[in-house]
Amino acid sequence: MNNRKSCIIVAGGKGERMQSNLPKQFIELQGKPILMHTIEAFRNFDTKTEIILVLPATQIDTWQTLCKKHAFSVPHKIVIGGATRFESVKNGLSLLGDTQLVAIHDGVRPLVSVETIAACYHEAAISGAAIPVVDAVDSMRQIVEDTSIAVDRTKYKMVQTPQVFSKEIILKAYNCDFSPRFTDDASVVEASGQKVALVNGNIENIKITTKTDLLLAEAIMQSR
Amino acid sequence: MNNRKSCIIVAGGKGERMQSNLPKQFIELQGKPILMHTIEAFRNFDTKTEIILVLPATQIDTWQTLCKKHAFSVPHKIVIGGATRFESVKNGLSLLGDTQLVAIHDGVRPLVSVETIAACYHEAAISGAAIPVVDAVDSMRQIVEDTSIAVDRTKYKMVQTPQVFSKEIILKAYNCDFSPRFTDDASVVEASGQKVALVNGNIENIKITTKTDLLLAEAIMQSR
Repeated sequence: MNNRKSCIIVAGGKGERMQSNLPKQFIELQGKPILMHTIEAFRNFDTKTEIILVLPATQIDTWQTLCKKHAFSVPHKIVIGGATRFESVKNGLSLLGDTQLVAIHDGVRPLVSVETIAACYHEAAISGAAIPVVDAVDSMRQIVEDTSIAVDRTKYKMVQTPQVFSKEIILKAYNCDFSPRFTDDASVVEASGQKVALVNGNIENIKITTKTDLLLAEAIMQSR
Repeated sequence: MNNRKSCIIVAGGKGERMQSNLPKQFIELQGKPILMHTIEAFRNFDTKTEIILVLPATQIDTWQTLCKKHAFSVPHKIVIGGATRFESVKNGLSLLGDTQLVAIHDGVRPLVSVETIAACYHEAAISGAAIPVVDAVDSMRQIVEDTSIAVDRTKYKMVQTPQVFSKEIILKAYNCDFSPRFTDDASVVEASGQKVALVNGNIENIKITTKTDLLLAEAIMQSR
């Protein structure tokens, strides 16, 4: 696979669900901010990947201070985030260089494996759009009006990131107005008429949003 | 709440997904088999709860040896499991004493909180059937024929245990033949025409089925 690759890392969290003043992407795991682990995951996959980091305007100073403190040297561009994730991704897309495949990844998913990243880029190179999914492990119920019904969990998949697209497809898809139906980048791309392929994610690739997630992430990193 | 309470703990795992010869319910957390932590969670809620443990016939000797080794003294009845979870629960129900509310709980969910247990018994005392659920955290897709569609994750809940029922309701529900639609006890009870109420579970109340789950459980226990 010789396609030129980019990765937009979206880090918009404020740390509210962590009951922390520190935005969650700056919380340390193994002595280093989560966001640095996330960027390094892509660097470990391919050192030539163009990395674009989307951050709230109020966090850019803190990030640059953290980069100095941790002597973080992975090259990356920084762009200011928008009021919504949709706008943030749009801002990230505006900085894309001469590239063919664009990954969009949550800043607080530092545990994405090299295999998951590779599988997503690989499938996107073939079919234009690919996202990593894992099985649902618990029984599930669907809320229907004022009651709920059991559903077959084997018919559902849990969606992770990176969500990877050809540059042409993602630029075309985001050239639209925001819709509340846009829950992730795949849903934006699908609204443009493009099908999205599913590839296997890795179960450790959790989105760190709670203190329990943070405990798990620390434990997984320790065990690696 | 002065109802007499029972709890059937179903421990049928073989450890295959753990790549371990030890059945997963016997794997140690903080130096003690998972199953002992699970039983103690119910003991911590109410020392008078009748505890019925369902175990595969081949594991009963090992369990009794483990109980001696760990000086585990929480009183419990033991019954042999069946070929399916449905049969295992039926066997557990056959041992119920003079009780009013019956919880059915996975042996490998040791992190259930006292609050979750209390909420389930409380709601079951009112409405006859109650199960703990938590929100879905990732985006979700539904597999439809040879493709997949994005679904609204806020319309879905992830189901945990204990699932708690009045004795009358659960006995009536299980007085039927097995159906592949029975994915949990709530689905058996619903097939009998009874509605099931949802209460808040606790997010740490994971079902330990993989090595990642085991890491998380160890981390949560350490942090408590």
